[in-house]
Amino acid sequence: MAKRVRVRSATYILRPVGVIRSALKSRKNAPRQGSEGAPDAWLDVRPWASEGLHLLSPGDEILVITWFHRAKRDVLKVRPRSDPRNPITGVFATRSPDRPNPLGLHPVVVRAIDGNRLRVGPIEAIDGTPVVDIKPVLEPPGKC
Amino acid sequence: MAKRVRVRSATYILRPVGVIRSALKSRKNAPRQGSEGAPDAWLDVRPWASEGLHLLSPGDEILVITWFHRAKRDVLKVRPRSDPRNPITGVFATRSPDRPNPLGLHPVVVRAIDGNRLRVGPIEAIDGTPVVDIKPVLEPPGKC
Repeated sequence: MAKRVRVRSATYILRPVGVIRSALKSRKNAPRQGSEGAPDAWLDVRPWASEGLHLLSPGDEILVITWFHRAKRDVLKVRPRSDPRNPITGVFATRSPDRPNPLGLHPVVVRAIDGNRLRVGPIEAIDGTPVVDIKPVLEPPGKC
Repeated sequence: MAKRVRVRSATYILRPVGVIRSALKSRKNAPRQGSEGAPDAWLDVRPWASEGLHLLSPGDEILVITWFHRAKRDVLKVRPRSDPRNPITGVFATRSPDRPNPLGLHPVVVRAIDGNRLRVGPIEAIDGTPVVDIKPVLEPPGKC
């Protein structure tokens, strides 16, 4: 019988490159998606990472990747949108913020750039949400 | 004069939920995007996370979020696609795998599901790439 090899499970450390500064102060009041009436917000990039913004311009479509610091990481199944009419669903088939690695994806438009601050929106992330990456949106065939 | 408040910079720990098993064995041979001739691959989900797949089905469009474990994390500017004709650009305006938090976004189709293994593609991630999250693709107005 083949011996089962135990794979070492490494972990990786995320170091935030910025933070969201928003009028949205709590998860309860935040829309579930940016397209559902979310406001614009500031994305303050840390001084050490600000060189990474070079050639980004107002009007660019970007994906802001956040870390949902208030999420529950031990949740594997949810009712999507907390709606009792929805069936219990694995978190990988939903956009629930509660998931093992609570990364958030926010497609936004860069409204303005002021030094190492970007005005972006619409974005449903609450004030204080750490930003871990920023990427340009790619057009199809890859949807993003 | 206002006093500058030093913000504590927290870090966050990612725990991989799975791994890519692919015929692509090195970064050198990998296409730059899935749409550029990449193969299908297996996404092996860790047993502890496999409940998170509940209700995911063949044919679903998903975003696989990987950790580019071979990337350089101290790079803030690159020439996109390593093409000397492209101007030096901040990494946040590119899809370079080299960046402070080397997260990869891969829009793929679920071809088949076999227990806690998903057949997905096309995907340019190399063999052994850790997977940190899986999300369904949302349709516009949010592009992803």
